[in-house]
Amino acid sequence: MADNKKMVDAITSMEENFAQWYTDVVKKAELASYSGVRGCMIVRPYGTALWENIRNDLDSRFKALGHENIMMPMFIPESLLQREKDHVEGFAPEVAWVTHGGDEKLQERLCVRPTSETVFCEHYADIIHSYRDLPKLYNQWCSVVRWEKTTRPFLRTMEFYWQEGHTMHETAEEALEETERMLNVYADFCEQSLAIPVVKGRKTDKEKFAGAEATYTIEAMMHDGKALQSGTSHYFGDGFARAFDIQFTDRANQLQYPHQTSWGMSTRIIGAIIMTHGDDNGLVLPPAVAPIQLVILPIAQHKPGVLDKARELADRLSAVARVKVDDSDNSAGWKFAEYEMKGVPLRLEIGPRDIENNQCVLVRRDNREKTVVSLDELETKIPELLKAVHDGLYQKALDRRESMTFTVTTMDEMKKTADEQPGLIKAMWCGDEECELKLKEIAGVTSRCMPFEQEHIADTCVCCGKPAKTMVVWGKAY
Amino acid sequence: MADNKKMVDAITSMEENFAQWYTDVVKKAELASYSGVRGCMIVRPYGTALWENIRNDLDSRFKALGHENIMMPMFIPESLLQREKDHVEGFAPEVAWVTHGGDEKLQERLCVRPTSETVFCEHYADIIHSYRDLPKLYNQWCSVVRWEKTTRPFLRTMEFYWQEGHTMHETAEEALEETERMLNVYADFCEQSLAIPVVKGRKTDKEKFAGAEATYTIEAMMHDGKALQSGTSHYFGDGFARAFDIQFTDRANQLQYPHQTSWGMSTRIIGAIIMTHGDDNGLVLPPAVAPIQLVILPIAQHKPGVLDKARELADRLSAVARVKVDDSDNSAGWKFAEYEMKGVPLRLEIGPRDIENNQCVLVRRDNREKTVVSLDELETKIPELLKAVHDGLYQKALDRRESMTFTVTTMDEMKKTADEQPGLIKAMWCGDEECELKLKEIAGVTSRCMPFEQEHIADTCVCCGKPAKTMVVWGKAY
Repeated sequence: MADNKKMVDAITSMEENFAQWYTDVVKKAELASYSGVRGCMIVRPYGTALWENIRNDLDSRFKALGHENIMMPMFIPESLLQREKDHVEGFAPEVAWVTHGGDEKLQERLCVRPTSETVFCEHYADIIHSYRDLPKLYNQWCSVVRWEKTTRPFLRTMEFYWQEGHTMHETAEEALEETERMLNVYADFCEQSLAIPVVKGRKTDKEKFAGAEATYTIEAMMHDGKALQSGTSHYFGDGFARAFDIQFTDRANQLQYPHQTSWGMSTRIIGAIIMTHGDDNGLVLPPAVAPIQLVILPIAQHKPGVLDKARELADRLSAVARVKVDDSDNSAGWKFAEYEMKGVPLRLEIGPRDIENNQCVLVRRDNREKTVVSLDELETKIPELLKAVHDGLYQKALDRRESMTFTVTTMDEMKKTADEQPGLIKAMWCGDEECELKLKEIAGVTSRCMPFEQEHIADTCVCCGKPAKTMVVWGKAY
Repeated sequence: MADNKKMVDAITSMEENFAQWYTDVVKKAELASYSGVRGCMIVRPYGTALWENIRNDLDSRFKALGHENIMMPMFIPESLLQREKDHVEGFAPEVAWVTHGGDEKLQERLCVRPTSETVFCEHYADIIHSYRDLPKLYNQWCSVVRWEKTTRPFLRTMEFYWQEGHTMHETAEEALEETERMLNVYADFCEQSLAIPVVKGRKTDKEKFAGAEATYTIEAMMHDGKALQSGTSHYFGDGFARAFDIQFTDRANQLQYPHQTSWGMSTRIIGAIIMTHGDDNGLVLPPAVAPIQLVILPIAQHKPGVLDKARELADRLSAVARVKVDDSDNSAGWKFAEYEMKGVPLRLEIGPRDIENNQCVLVRRDNREKTVVSLDELETKIPELLKAVHDGLYQKALDRRESMTFTVTTMDEMKKTADEQPGLIKAMWCGDEECELKLKEIAGVTSRCMPFEQEHIADTCVCCGKPAKTMVVWGKAY
């Protein structure tokens, strides 16, 4: 250990300073670090491996539903961005502009894509002519750029990674079905693969995507009670199709405009994983996407046979889990702390006495529960424990969300709850944007969504007292 | 068929106009199309699926050797690009410059990465301190931008997709080993997965990468006899490390500069696949990376039982190949032409009489050889035939290259051969850049590489007659 530069320092506790805790985890778990360009992050190998697992999982869900990947140019000419009025108003203030190629000044500025509706529409105008060409179910994995003022790794960065699905359909009904289907894919992915419970709902007009007719969202609650929008799915109607002259001959030989959706999930979701499951010892990763699911730590590894046994187990168990054996000469204590920091779901300890007894110790990251297991049973025990970690994480997150979700019926209650209790607040709303603005001003909360699962809390709007149209989940958000 | 808009038109023949043939194949096989931004292509779903197969194959080769993926920012500040003198001279004239973020003019221009040595080095300076931190074996998959004057899909585009490996090592020897190892990975991949034979060698100083001490290359020969540089691996010595102040404490507790490599393969390789294996019926894809390996075409599909049988076979055979069944109402003739155009390695035809006889017809794309096969033997026969297609493609490409590679010893022979015979030319060289320039001027050829497998053709340089140092492969190139 003498010459070992790297030590696992303690991180700031959540209680003390949640924002600093988050930054410490990102750094110490080696997920990302800052680059020389303001607001652009370097996603380090451990963070990249996590993103690759997220990508592969989502990608296979998309492909199973018939979606195809495509790769579009990263540059959008200014005139193309301006074709749809609401869209350009939403995005133009926050794009990066390329003005020169080499020494030559460009005749028209190009922006680096903040999102790709416009280039997809230009391509769709080329390739959609008949109802036989529909639906088009395209997706792309790429990075996009938005010129943000304040940034934080994963949560808000100038360049971020995401997938953006863009689909075209014969009818409004089919497009609406797709919008909902893809929101459900995101929700299932969050619950089944990330162990993150989410609220599904629709955004108010004020909060919807620039150019969309409707935006659906999944909202997750972080450890500090704030909401994080984790994935969105948009229904565009035929607005872009009209702006981009996309027309097809329908089954009755009439010219029609197709109906469109788009949907995206980004590296923000890594922020959600950190802030949903993490604790004061660092990251806690859901097994389905963890780059390492099981770390094998040889104990007293200088003793004969220990390292060999550890490596033999790693070989054997790589059939049932993503396994790493750490045979470095760092101390066992250092290794325990390191893999806790990195959120590895299961740790396997094996020393000379274990080998004699044909057993090992398995330790869960989420609750530190230890089990002594026969070496002969590992192939069944490890998948069981990984599932137990997943279920434990999900239940804990769900319990937290439920205990931190409040119901209010008056503005006084709203203000008091928002001031005193971190969490989400359910309250009725009349549908008027003025009330949204007032709630923001008075209680500091924004509408997160109008949940698909509605409850009838009261007859009147929490703000103005007029007849209520819908229940909204309000909160502070990332 | 009445209402079927899409028809497979004949494409220009190779003989008539090779460049037009290439463009026709790219378009008709739906690999890529042009976007609204000059020189930027849309890689369509079929081209994207091909690239994903290439990426996954290469990626697993890299990971098997211990490389880790990382995601670096796409922007490089101008001052960072300028840190290594040769590098900036090579790339500054062809980068895209971002000058504005939203309405705000940037204090310092950012270029969109043309390659990422500089950002990797900045990060390495942060994370490399001790010999224990070495080697660093990083790779990233991304797109890069170079402001090219003339462009062609896949071969030369302003934005293109690639992987770039960037590694750091304790010693020059280790870095040189890595440079060679990764060139061999590329060569193996080309031969084993793409059925493309390549010449491995070193670039002359004139042709090497900006900032490198040595560039290794693999060169493939296209159908028209031109060479295509298909992958490169660079040794940097400690030049960048010095420019970026990257130092580590070695085993003897001395400060040292690490030694560096980088290596890349890009979407250009799709151009190589097209021009190595394609024919006048369209694309011919090597089975290992083909998005569809086997297309099942039901014959007389309106007859009872045919479609069911075709779908049943598709289900069954998806265990041994990537299968598509085309049950559209297009004619059988149209389908034959369509999947030939798309280069699908194997076609399975099944009609009512085949079903009666418990058999089907398998047709190879590369040589149109037909085999009647019992339905009970498909699980063994299909992998065999896919292997036969691969071997056939490789052998045909190798035979062509050998029959189109010439040896010359005088300038007269060189000029006559270069003028009259498409292909590569082996000739001795003194090592002087003046002779390279003269060969370009007089015979129109450039040095492709100094092959690792040297032959002693003559004692003297083909150009100046002075003592020869090395055999060079010369040619015209993409």
